[in-house]
Amino acid sequence: MSITTPKGFVAAGLASGIKASGALDLALLATEDGKAVPTAATFTTNLAAAAPVQVSRDHLLATGGRAAAVVVSSGNANAATGARGKKNAARMCALVASDLGVPPDEVLVCSTGLISFQLPMEPIEAGLPVLVAARSGSAQSAKDAATGILTTDSGRKEVLVQGSGFAVAGMAKGAGMIAPNMATMLAFLTTDAAVEPGPLADMLRIAVEDSFNSLTIDGCTSTNDTVILMASGRAGPADPNEVVDAVTDACLDLAGRMAADAEGASKIAHVRVTGAGSDGQAHQAARKVAESMLVKCSLNGADPYWGRIASDLGSAGVAFDMDKLTIAYGGVVVCRDGVTVDHDQAAVAAHLAGSTVDIHCDLNLADGNGMAMTVDLGYGYIDENRTTS
Amino acid sequence: MSITTPKGFVAAGLASGIKASGALDLALLATEDGKAVPTAATFTTNLAAAAPVQVSRDHLLATGGRAAAVVVSSGNANAATGARGKKNAARMCALVASDLGVPPDEVLVCSTGLISFQLPMEPIEAGLPVLVAARSGSAQSAKDAATGILTTDSGRKEVLVQGSGFAVAGMAKGAGMIAPNMATMLAFLTTDAAVEPGPLADMLRIAVEDSFNSLTIDGCTSTNDTVILMASGRAGPADPNEVVDAVTDACLDLAGRMAADAEGASKIAHVRVTGAGSDGQAHQAARKVAESMLVKCSLNGADPYWGRIASDLGSAGVAFDMDKLTIAYGGVVVCRDGVTVDHDQAAVAAHLAGSTVDIHCDLNLADGNGMAMTVDLGYGYIDENRTTS
Repeated sequence: MSITTPKGFVAAGLASGIKASGALDLALLATEDGKAVPTAATFTTNLAAAAPVQVSRDHLLATGGRAAAVVVSSGNANAATGARGKKNAARMCALVASDLGVPPDEVLVCSTGLISFQLPMEPIEAGLPVLVAARSGSAQSAKDAATGILTTDSGRKEVLVQGSGFAVAGMAKGAGMIAPNMATMLAFLTTDAAVEPGPLADMLRIAVEDSFNSLTIDGCTSTNDTVILMASGRAGPADPNEVVDAVTDACLDLAGRMAADAEGASKIAHVRVTGAGSDGQAHQAARKVAESMLVKCSLNGADPYWGRIASDLGSAGVAFDMDKLTIAYGGVVVCRDGVTVDHDQAAVAAHLAGSTVDIHCDLNLADGNGMAMTVDLGYGYIDENRTTS
Repeated sequence: MSITTPKGFVAAGLASGIKASGALDLALLATEDGKAVPTAATFTTNLAAAAPVQVSRDHLLATGGRAAAVVVSSGNANAATGARGKKNAARMCALVASDLGVPPDEVLVCSTGLISFQLPMEPIEAGLPVLVAARSGSAQSAKDAATGILTTDSGRKEVLVQGSGFAVAGMAKGAGMIAPNMATMLAFLTTDAAVEPGPLADMLRIAVEDSFNSLTIDGCTSTNDTVILMASGRAGPADPNEVVDAVTDACLDLAGRMAADAEGASKIAHVRVTGAGSDGQAHQAARKVAESMLVKCSLNGADPYWGRIASDLGSAGVAFDMDKLTIAYGGVVVCRDGVTVDHDQAAVAAHLAGSTVDIHCDLNLADGNGMAMTVDLGYGYIDENRTTS
């Protein structure tokens, strides 16, 4: 499986020298024929958005949702770099565009790494022509691209979903759970289904909401988060519902790989909230619980202290009635009508000792459902984040 | 200095047996003559508010802001205890009221400790008459009361502020930073200034906003947080501005003691935000930075990585322009106009190595100012919170 499995795409990866380690640090995803195709993107909502986010946003607006290529650099976020940073991000697009023979605004750019340092443009300027020349549809090129976008990730994150006559593939980076100083979540998806820019943007929005936006490690929103979906159209039209499902499945798979790539964490938790006033409220409540330092510490200690969960639900800013609350760990109800109920403590202990914990909170108010994924908070998080050097 | 220094108050503390350790676990604060006096309170906004919070809120409404006594139990929060919990909280008030010869709604009640366990009523019912009988204006009684409200605190937290012809005293518990499973912040203040219930409530609201509400350890809002201020009137009328300043000073002192009582933490940080769109926005932005797990980890590692601060400000939900941002550690500007500036790195390192860190963020947009206090995130927090047993 690779980002170039859907028809019409080529890729490449290169070690240009941004990373002192000599690891791959540039990646390219482009259309095979160099033509711009419908492309959708979601960007971080952080008002301190990095230069490449600003540039890519502008380019996508200018083209009405079409792009011929995406260029990615890793090891430096090009964030908090002011006007010079924006110029450098635009320069990356211009260099790639020139080599591909397309207008600069048909190239999007992403960067990931440390904030507040200027990009080392020398290796990048030397590397980009080599990167573009190396592009191909081969498995190795796709592998290089999927490697070139990584920072502290323990390995490549790739996915392939086969639809009826079309495919959706993706590659991502994100080790936010262990080293959120490089917390950027980048994901690149390709499909050969034919979808126009407008519907493609809607599809991506839905897929991201149900996947990446449910993954929360520490409540911090990166300056560089970006998800891009390109549709070559080479497989012809497809059932829109099937495409959105395939894109969502691909995003969910990649989000799960990010959560699983948690060197500093010992377990993943799925927090499900049902019976909320609305889906939005359920999502908000699930996120509050998933981001709670106290709940995350409890997960680390495998401690069945549901009082913390109740307290977080009560301060989540959503409709809540303590007297109606049900909480279950791994399907075992520990709290009903807001108070402790007799339960199988050994079963709860066994569930909490595992590597995946399921927390289900039923607010019993209405029909709103939502989910959030998180990891535990242990020494590992602190080891990875106390210094950036 | 003690809670009974302002004229007209008595206090008591007792070990009733709630705590297995045999430590003091009941406290009483009452008027000397048993008469209800103007009393103001602020309670947690958590919708999972504990039984004693619900009962005290009702009592204060019923009396129009007057109370003759406050009874406090420590070791068990009486939270997530349903109808039985509420009955037990009301029973505590009734027992004290009966011994004092006042109506039950003239007694307020607070509890602090673990959530989701029913109060052990046997020791409490036996202890309350002894507690009430032991009340006095002596320094020892006040000391016992200030001890009886503690849980994981390393010691008593008391304050006395002398005004012109009146005094404000306080006692508090709160070790939220190290063991937020018992994170309740309780504070009790007395003054002998004569203030009517309405103005007294306004004064307390202002004082709490500028003190306790600026202290944030992990963004979790306890089910039991309560601050109560009683005014005996025995010193006669006083300048309202002077009283509000004295109450604020007392609250600030107690909040500082809570932050300093951070066994699991190695340093306190003051996050000041200036130049925001409004004071509210400045407060919100300061709180976002202060609650950031990444910033708190950086503090633990004494790492001058201001990119994280910028990222938190950009996602704080307030007006923000990266190109106008200034950030300083201990007065040394490290970021100006949103980019790194040359600075004295040794001075910043020395400041970050200290036990108190000052982070100043100037948004350079308007005149809004706000502050938040926090502590670092290190192994200690995890050690204290991974299990409740």
